[in-house]
Amino acid sequence: MAKGELCAETKRGNMKIAAFAMALFFALGSAAVADEGMWTFDHFPSKTVGAKYGFTPSQAWLNHVRASALRIAGGCSASFISPGGLVMTNHHCAVDCENSLSTAQTNLVQNGFYAKTQDEETKCPGFEIDQLTGIQDVTKQMLAATKGLTGAAFTAANRVENAKIQKQCGGTNPAIRCDVVSLYHGGVYDIYKYNRFRDVRLVFAPEFAVAQFGGDVDNFNFPRFDFDIALLRVYDNNKPAATPSYLRWSKNGSKAGDLVFVAGNPGSTQRELTVAQLAYLRDVSLPKEVAQLAELRGLLEEYQTLGPEQKRTTNDSLFFIENDYKVIVGQLQALDDPTLFGSLVAKERKLRALVAKQPALQKQYGGAWNQMAALQKLRERLDTLEGYKSGAFLRSSSYFGIAQTLVRAPVEKAKPNAQRLPEFSDAALPFLPYELFDPTPIYPAVEQLDLTFALDNLRREYGPADPFVQLMLQGRSPADQAQYLIANTQLGSIDARKKLYAGGEPAIAASNDSFIQLARSIDAETRAVRKQYEDQVSNPTRQISEAIAKARFAIEGTSVYPDATFTLRLSYGKVAGFTDSHGVIGPFTTIGGLFARASNADPYVLPQSWLDAKSSLDLQTPMNLSTTNDIIGGNSGSPLIDRNGDVVGLIFDGNIHSLGGDFGYDPVLNRSVALDSRAIVAGLTHVYHADRIVNEIAGTP
Amino acid sequence: MAKGELCAETKRGNMKIAAFAMALFFALGSAAVADEGMWTFDHFPSKTVGAKYGFTPSQAWLNHVRASALRIAGGCSASFISPGGLVMTNHHCAVDCENSLSTAQTNLVQNGFYAKTQDEETKCPGFEIDQLTGIQDVTKQMLAATKGLTGAAFTAANRVENAKIQKQCGGTNPAIRCDVVSLYHGGVYDIYKYNRFRDVRLVFAPEFAVAQFGGDVDNFNFPRFDFDIALLRVYDNNKPAATPSYLRWSKNGSKAGDLVFVAGNPGSTQRELTVAQLAYLRDVSLPKEVAQLAELRGLLEEYQTLGPEQKRTTNDSLFFIENDYKVIVGQLQALDDPTLFGSLVAKERKLRALVAKQPALQKQYGGAWNQMAALQKLRERLDTLEGYKSGAFLRSSSYFGIAQTLVRAPVEKAKPNAQRLPEFSDAALPFLPYELFDPTPIYPAVEQLDLTFALDNLRREYGPADPFVQLMLQGRSPADQAQYLIANTQLGSIDARKKLYAGGEPAIAASNDSFIQLARSIDAETRAVRKQYEDQVSNPTRQISEAIAKARFAIEGTSVYPDATFTLRLSYGKVAGFTDSHGVIGPFTTIGGLFARASNADPYVLPQSWLDAKSSLDLQTPMNLSTTNDIIGGNSGSPLIDRNGDVVGLIFDGNIHSLGGDFGYDPVLNRSVALDSRAIVAGLTHVYHADRIVNEIAGTP
Repeated sequence: MAKGELCAETKRGNMKIAAFAMALFFALGSAAVADEGMWTFDHFPSKTVGAKYGFTPSQAWLNHVRASALRIAGGCSASFISPGGLVMTNHHCAVDCENSLSTAQTNLVQNGFYAKTQDEETKCPGFEIDQLTGIQDVTKQMLAATKGLTGAAFTAANRVENAKIQKQCGGTNPAIRCDVVSLYHGGVYDIYKYNRFRDVRLVFAPEFAVAQFGGDVDNFNFPRFDFDIALLRVYDNNKPAATPSYLRWSKNGSKAGDLVFVAGNPGSTQRELTVAQLAYLRDVSLPKEVAQLAELRGLLEEYQTLGPEQKRTTNDSLFFIENDYKVIVGQLQALDDPTLFGSLVAKERKLRALVAKQPALQKQYGGAWNQMAALQKLRERLDTLEGYKSGAFLRSSSYFGIAQTLVRAPVEKAKPNAQRLPEFSDAALPFLPYELFDPTPIYPAVEQLDLTFALDNLRREYGPADPFVQLMLQGRSPADQAQYLIANTQLGSIDARKKLYAGGEPAIAASNDSFIQLARSIDAETRAVRKQYEDQVSNPTRQISEAIAKARFAIEGTSVYPDATFTLRLSYGKVAGFTDSHGVIGPFTTIGGLFARASNADPYVLPQSWLDAKSSLDLQTPMNLSTTNDIIGGNSGSPLIDRNGDVVGLIFDGNIHSLGGDFGYDPVLNRSVALDSRAIVAGLTHVYHADRIVNEIAGTP
Repeated sequence: MAKGELCAETKRGNMKIAAFAMALFFALGSAAVADEGMWTFDHFPSKTVGAKYGFTPSQAWLNHVRASALRIAGGCSASFISPGGLVMTNHHCAVDCENSLSTAQTNLVQNGFYAKTQDEETKCPGFEIDQLTGIQDVTKQMLAATKGLTGAAFTAANRVENAKIQKQCGGTNPAIRCDVVSLYHGGVYDIYKYNRFRDVRLVFAPEFAVAQFGGDVDNFNFPRFDFDIALLRVYDNNKPAATPSYLRWSKNGSKAGDLVFVAGNPGSTQRELTVAQLAYLRDVSLPKEVAQLAELRGLLEEYQTLGPEQKRTTNDSLFFIENDYKVIVGQLQALDDPTLFGSLVAKERKLRALVAKQPALQKQYGGAWNQMAALQKLRERLDTLEGYKSGAFLRSSSYFGIAQTLVRAPVEKAKPNAQRLPEFSDAALPFLPYELFDPTPIYPAVEQLDLTFALDNLRREYGPADPFVQLMLQGRSPADQAQYLIANTQLGSIDARKKLYAGGEPAIAASNDSFIQLARSIDAETRAVRKQYEDQVSNPTRQISEAIAKARFAIEGTSVYPDATFTLRLSYGKVAGFTDSHGVIGPFTTIGGLFARASNADPYVLPQSWLDAKSSLDLQTPMNLSTTNDIIGGNSGSPLIDRNGDVVGLIFDGNIHSLGGDFGYDPVLNRSVALDSRAIVAGLTHVYHADRIVNEIAGTP
């Protein structure tokens, strides 16, 4: 068995030699050579950068960038680009806002938006932008609270301590957000403190057709030609917020080989997972996700053929589903590739060997990898159970999400802080009304599609005789039950939600709303399943990961960056193209290339505004560029910054080879993709005539 | 490296012990213990059956069963159950016929069909039923023709010899079909000679709701409650054909433990593939197929919500897509399971070790496994190329399929027989008119959906700048191009097709039909891609497989059955349930169970005919049963036969565990699922009052 174990996770033995050669790129310590790493601001390897690129970021430089970088709570990055609260992000990060402000008559997504005056800047419902103001290590406090505990006791203690620290940090001030962030899978706990902006207004967005030029076909590809930008502004007391920390605009942009930084919030990577966890992803969970996304994509694509209103109300969903689909297919292909997987096996083997050499480490942590492997055997059944019978599968229905929150709020609020579900803790409660009373429209036809799919999947998984399935379907088919539920809810009305929230448990108990009744009827079971999953999967995973993290720490310290956690990180790299089976691909495209690629075929139809402006544009202006920065989903909207700390671009994507980046960084092929700062100015000036904004970012009064 | 190779193909090392234990079931030689095997009629292991079950099928018994068993050319099995040409098969095997005979006004699929008199029996357009009349070994002839050849020369010689043998066997008589069948992946070549029935009429079909009771949710599950039967009749000169070989009806049916046989045409298995080929399926091709099927399924599901006519015209497609989806997901899960995969690795290792012990064998064939592994590296690019740029992806469009045949027919017919594409050989030509002038309706809206999806996938794969993509899209989006093509074709008219076929090359060249023009414009490239694939993938695969087959032959002879090839096979087994994570599942369900499972929720809504008949039915009558017979897709419609050669059931499915059966047979869990002969008689008598048919199968005049 021992001999077998060394290669048990490698697929296709015939490709072993290639895997071995490539493994060098992914091996431990490669970060020093390659532009790898999503570094926290408090452990940025300035010296490494200095040695490689001749520029060593100072603490002041880092502080300035950190304070100018932003996070959009929905899952994107952004930055301040003027002292008056002007925020730059991607079009696809603001599309939710454009959708909310659109109607069947005015389609802002299709037509774009520009507030000619400040008065025309329009509030984005439900938007939240966070500015990181401080990081503090709370590892000792968190570990002390859970020391020696396992199972339910660990869950409870972890939750109590988490709630306590967050409350100490932010109190109940809704303008402050504090998150306990677990880095290195529990090796380090930090508290991240943010200024929280909830009055966010739309300033500018181009037409969808040029923002997402090439659509899903070109997504994750380079060469690329997207004007994927949106401008927002944060307000304070109904006035533009004063934002003294902001990024200035580079006068000349960048050129091939230039050192560039990306400050943003990479959502999640899985580079510290054990081989057993990765094999589980590869063999069990990712294949299921691909199939579900593909089917949902088909449902939406066909729904869109019904007409422009159907298209408008689901474009946003379809965009994200297509995006996720490509990401997950890319992840699966990466894990199914023996080259990458072999390198991850080698990396783990190397770490385990180093641990084994130190008897104290080996004794304390050496068994963790096998424990993690054993835990994966439990997961197939429990992941499915959690997915369905915790009700998580139904959260794709906005109505159900609201109903479940309304049903649980009075019950949870009656408990002591420490015993509540985390989303009802004292620290979280102030924000509940924002979520519950979010005026983003809910479209019944889209709910019908999503709910039918969700209920159909539930029945496929457990069959019609399962008691939970029977409770959910109430004797109806999935489509009929969805129709019944939607026809018998008042939760589309914000007033109705407010009355139920204010009325507490008696109002909930008396409600004959279909979704409230459904959420109530499954509340006990969904809570029990959630608890079981936390006790048997999430927390053991966390505890074993923590042990592995400690072992890794003992060997590497903070010389290695932690997995991404949708918190602020800084990556360094250079402007560079790449060479793959399509040939040598240079780092820049041009505005002329955009016009050359345009046609009458969707998604390559340029909006009239660009066609009209063609003669006034310099076609040699750089349009998009590729860089070696190590980024991942969540980095969308991040500023691309030069050594002066000035904006030279706006990250909006990675190339197709970056999709394996979830598991490891390949310096040869992995590239981030950005909109060039010069194209931004050219577009704002000549296409959109947005002079007040161009002057604002240029610092011209 | 050498040590690594032993376990290189095993996934998840932590499950190795289980894999090793289970491997016993899949190992070489297990056929003697388990009820494994899809045996050809000329090498049936009668003695093994005799030793295990106390009944040794005689040559006369085998001849009788062989002559009574049938194949439906579309991909199903069937049998004669009366001397007057009455044919029993599954409802889902005849659903194409019901669809063709349906209109928006009369939906035969939904309402069922019963010809009260023989006059009402209605012709099924495009149906063909084949009765095997002889098997002859032509291995020497085939191997001599290709001896020493490789690449294009091999392809040509193989094709010439194939055409020659088929023509010698059947001439140009359309009532005779002769196929050269390659068994053991080229280890044996046989010529299979069939009586070909082309006048096939629908006699009886129940309502879809009871035939497919439980729909996709219950598909591949047991316990099961489906009345999945259809009755057809073959005609000769406009009269019911005389069919002296037919299966008689069992008086008492079967009971648990009884020996039972399945005579049918399993479509394809992959039990002789090398580990490298299986890894390719697991890591590359099956994941892609799952994603494509899932998306197409979503498209169709949403299309069906538009109304009953949309449902009617796509129910058939959706049924097969859902079925394929479940099959492929099941195959992928099987291969992703380290237990099964580990056993397949062990099986190959054992065979290779036996070969290595014999220096002559090792010298001649020992390198074949590594050659096959090397070939898989080529496949990813070439499989995709073949899928798209041979035009294969467009064959989902009926219009395109017809157009391509019309374009190629005059060109091919002008060549000597041996140089033609196989589908235009002298042996195949007589059947071309049946395909070209098939009156099955083509629905433009369904074509629009299928074509858009196909063109969209092409563009996703190669991008908008690819020359072939540009040729296919002609500057339009996939949806627009599909619409353009469909709006500008006359191929929906059979007369138009006949004129083009009769007119030959001049008519084709002069045609302004959109699909004809498209098929012409890509003809050169699609032919070149097809040839490249044959030369670089198909034929090398065949040649290496042949080498492996010869090595296996030298060791095992015909003591082992060949992979399924959609030719007639016989399997033996017994009536038995199984035990899995759901508990102990008995072999029989009852008609009472059907009523208990029924509800008002689709797909569990019983038709009125069954609700009305409930009081006259004996609810204890066995409904469905499970047996240990080793079957696979293509066996649908096979008779389940007892030792007397009498019908005790009708195979229509396998259980969920049978989906791994593509790669190996698991005697513990793998079960076939059949409709009990007693339920058939009960339903025909009490629900459908089909007395003339009940009398006919009972032999009562």
